[in-house]
Amino acid sequence: MSVPTTKVTPISGFPELLPAQRLLELHFLDVIREVFELHGFAPLETRAVEPVERLLGKGGDADKEIYGIGRLAGDDSGRDAALGLHFDLTVPFARYVLENAGKLAFPFRRYQIQKVWRGERPQEGRFREFTQADIDVVDVGELAPHFEAEMPLVIAEAFSRLPVGEFRIQVNNRKIPEGFFLGIGLTDVVGTLRIVDRLAKIGPGPVAEMLIESGASEEQVQQVLALASIRSSDLSFVDAVRALGVQHPTLDEGLDALSAVISAGLEQAPGVLVADLSIARGLDYYTGTVYETQLVGSESWGSVCSGGRYDSLATDGRTTYPGVGISIGLTRLVHLLVSKRGLTASRSTPAAVLVAVVDEAGREASRRVASALRSRGIACEVAPSAARFGKQIRYADRRGIPFVWFPGAAEGGGDQVKDIRSGEQVDADAATWSCPEADLKPSVVTP
Amino acid sequence: MSVPTTKVTPISGFPELLPAQRLLELHFLDVIREVFELHGFAPLETRAVEPVERLLGKGGDADKEIYGIGRLAGDDSGRDAALGLHFDLTVPFARYVLENAGKLAFPFRRYQIQKVWRGERPQEGRFREFTQADIDVVDVGELAPHFEAEMPLVIAEAFSRLPVGEFRIQVNNRKIPEGFFLGIGLTDVVGTLRIVDRLAKIGPGPVAEMLIESGASEEQVQQVLALASIRSSDLSFVDAVRALGVQHPTLDEGLDALSAVISAGLEQAPGVLVADLSIARGLDYYTGTVYETQLVGSESWGSVCSGGRYDSLATDGRTTYPGVGISIGLTRLVHLLVSKRGLTASRSTPAAVLVAVVDEAGREASRRVASALRSRGIACEVAPSAARFGKQIRYADRRGIPFVWFPGAAEGGGDQVKDIRSGEQVDADAATWSCPEADLKPSVVTP
Repeated sequence: MSVPTTKVTPISGFPELLPAQRLLELHFLDVIREVFELHGFAPLETRAVEPVERLLGKGGDADKEIYGIGRLAGDDSGRDAALGLHFDLTVPFARYVLENAGKLAFPFRRYQIQKVWRGERPQEGRFREFTQADIDVVDVGELAPHFEAEMPLVIAEAFSRLPVGEFRIQVNNRKIPEGFFLGIGLTDVVGTLRIVDRLAKIGPGPVAEMLIESGASEEQVQQVLALASIRSSDLSFVDAVRALGVQHPTLDEGLDALSAVISAGLEQAPGVLVADLSIARGLDYYTGTVYETQLVGSESWGSVCSGGRYDSLATDGRTTYPGVGISIGLTRLVHLLVSKRGLTASRSTPAAVLVAVVDEAGREASRRVASALRSRGIACEVAPSAARFGKQIRYADRRGIPFVWFPGAAEGGGDQVKDIRSGEQVDADAATWSCPEADLKPSVVTP
Repeated sequence: MSVPTTKVTPISGFPELLPAQRLLELHFLDVIREVFELHGFAPLETRAVEPVERLLGKGGDADKEIYGIGRLAGDDSGRDAALGLHFDLTVPFARYVLENAGKLAFPFRRYQIQKVWRGERPQEGRFREFTQADIDVVDVGELAPHFEAEMPLVIAEAFSRLPVGEFRIQVNNRKIPEGFFLGIGLTDVVGTLRIVDRLAKIGPGPVAEMLIESGASEEQVQQVLALASIRSSDLSFVDAVRALGVQHPTLDEGLDALSAVISAGLEQAPGVLVADLSIARGLDYYTGTVYETQLVGSESWGSVCSGGRYDSLATDGRTTYPGVGISIGLTRLVHLLVSKRGLTASRSTPAAVLVAVVDEAGREASRRVASALRSRGIACEVAPSAARFGKQIRYADRRGIPFVWFPGAAEGGGDQVKDIRSGEQVDADAATWSCPEADLKPSVVTP
C-alpha cells in the first residue's frame, strides 16, 4: 500500500461517520427503503455524472454548485462531453426517464437513494457530499392528483418508524399564492414567491420592505402577509383564505387540491400534515403541491424532507412527463440527530456474540460454534486470539457485543454463554440457543 | 424542471440498469451485506473524494486512472487541496484508519460497499463507475495469520448464496514465488512477478521470452514456469513444489502459510479454494496471501473477486497497520451475469400485489386494503386509475406483479384476490391473507 504523503485530515463538507454512527445511518436507510418498497416504488440508481450542459439546465444559479470532473491524465478529454457530479436525484431521474421511456411502464414509481454533491460553502448541517432518499411518480401527459396526497403520507409512514420524534409535514399548493397574487393584481408571481419564501428566515418586516421595493402597494403587502400567515391541520385554511376576499380561478383550483391532500392526511395520519400557506420553495420549479418537513422542537434545522409536483418533470419536445416527488435529506437528518440529540447505535459492530477461543488448537471448535450461530441468523465473530478470558470479554465490551460464548465451559463439556452486561452465564447449545430479539441487531440509543 | 438541451445518450463506462435488473443487483447487495454482517464486519462509508496527492501515492501508473474534481464556479479553489474521486476502497480505508485510529477497536473488521471511479478505457465488463464490496481486517503492529484463511471463506459463503453457479477461489502466497525466485538466483522479485502475472493472458511462450529478456537463464525460466503451473485443491501443491528442489526460508514460510489457508478451505468449503501458484496480482502491494476468483465456465471474464494481505495497509510513521482484505467487483459481476447469462428479476417492482380500484370513490377502500397488507410486510400498490379491470390486470402484468386484489368482489361484499399467472381467484381478507413466500419479494430468474 502507498505510504501516505499528505496529512490525514477531514475535508470540510465531506462528512464521515464512526462505525456505531454508520450503523445508526444504516438503520435509517433500511427503514426508509423498506417503506418505499412496501409502497411499490422500484429501486433505481443512476450514474453519478451528467453532461455539465444538462446539469446547468435553466436553473438560475445552479452552476455555482456543480463539481466538474476530468481525468487527470486527460488524454481523451476531447472525446467526451464535459461531465459533472449530479447535485440532486431529480435531474438524473428526468434524464433516465427520457432515455428509457420505451422500456418503462407508466405511471412509473421509483425510489432512489444516492450520494449527491454540491460545491456550496459547508456549514452546520449543510454538506458538499450527502445522501438523499427520493421517491417520485412520473406519468405520460397527465398525472392523477391522488399521487400528490400519497407522497407525504409515505414519508409520514417512514418517519413514524424512525427515532426522529414528532414531525410535521407542511403542505401548500403553488396555485394558491399564484391565484391569490393575480387576484390582488401582483403579476410577478415568481418574484413575489421568492420574496415570501424568505419569511421564516428574515421575518415579516424585511419581507414587507422587499415587496414594497418590488412595486407592491401597502394593501397588497398586507394581503400577501395575511395569506402567508395561514396554517391549519384541518380544512379551516379554506375559510381563512376566503375571508381575505380575493377571487381567482387558479386560487380555487389550489384550494381544492390542497384540501384533497389535507383530507387524505386527516384520514391516514392525523396531526402530521399541516396546510401552511407560507411554504413556497421559491427556487424550485414546482407547479402544484409543495412539501417541507420539520422536526418538532428542532424547527431551526430547517426542512429535512421536501418536494413537490412538476407539470413537466421531463420532456423530449413531443411528450411531456409530469411528476411528483419528495426527498429526504438523509445525511443532514442523521448528522443533526447525532450531533444535537446524541443518537447512536448500541454497538459498533453487527456482531451479537463473540465466540471465545480457549487456545489456538481450539480455534476450529470456536469457528464451528460461530458457523452454527450464523446459520440461524445470529451475527458473531470468533475472538482474534486465545488471550485470557478477561481480555476476550474486554474485546466484546469495547465494541458493545452483548454476549461471549465459551466453548466447552459447561460441566460435561458443553458450551456456556455469558451476557456480559448482567454477568449471567448459562449452559447453551449453538444449534438451539436463541439470541434475545432486542440484541439480535444493534439498536438505536438515545441519551 | 429544466428543459433538456443536450441529447439523452448513455455515457460510455457509466452503466445504468433497468428496474428489474436493479432489483437483481439489490439482491446481490443484500446477500453480500448479510453475510458480511453475520461475520461481524462493521459497515463503513468513506467520502467519495481524497486529496489527489494521496490517491497518487507511490502507485506506478495510478495517475492515469484518477478523476479530479473541481467546482465549476471555482471561486474557492485556492483554499482546498486538489481532490479526486477514489479509484478503490482500500486507499480511503487506510486513510480512515489513520484518521480515526484512536476511536477504533483493533483488530478492526469492516465492510464497505461503494461506488469507485476509474478513468480507464471502457470495455466489456470494465467500467469507469462501478460498485465494489470489500471486507478487510486491520490490526496494529501484527496481524494474526488466521484472518488470511477467513477472508476467502466469507466470500465463499456469500457466493454460495448467490446465483453465480460454481466458482473457484484461487489462492497463492507471495512468499512462495519470492522465496522460489531468490532460491534459483532471480533477485528482481517484483519484476519477475509482473511478467509471470501475464501468463493467463499471453501464455507461457511469450512469458518465457520476456523472462529471458529480463536476464533469466533458460533453466531459471523453466523453473519459474514449472512453479507457476502447479495447482491443487488439496495440500499436494507442497510436494509438487518440493519436487522442483529449490530451497529458501521464505519459500518454506509461504508454503506453510498457504497450507494453512487451503486446510481451512478443505474443512469449511471443500472444493472451493484452489492453491494456484500462478496467481501473482502483479501490480498490487500484497506481501502474503493473494486471492482471485473465477466463475467456472466463465473464466474468460477474469477475476470477479480479488485481494490479499498487506504488511502495511497504512502507517503514520510510528505505527504500522497490517491488513488483509478481499473485494467483490459487484458491477462487473452483475453486468456479466445479466448480459452473458441472461439473469434478471421476476418483476420490475417490489410490489407483490396490485389493489384494484373499483371507482374513484372507492380509492380510499382500496388504500385501506393496501395499508393492511403492508402492515404485514406485503409490498403493494393501489391502481393508478379506476380503469376497467382488464386494464388494471394488464398494469400488474406489465410489471410482473403476481396478484391483483379486488375489494368487494366476493359474494357478501368481501374481497377477492387473483393470481394473474394461473387465473385463480379466491376470497381473501387483507388482515389475514398470506402471500406465498416465493412471491413476497422479486426472485432471480435464469433463462
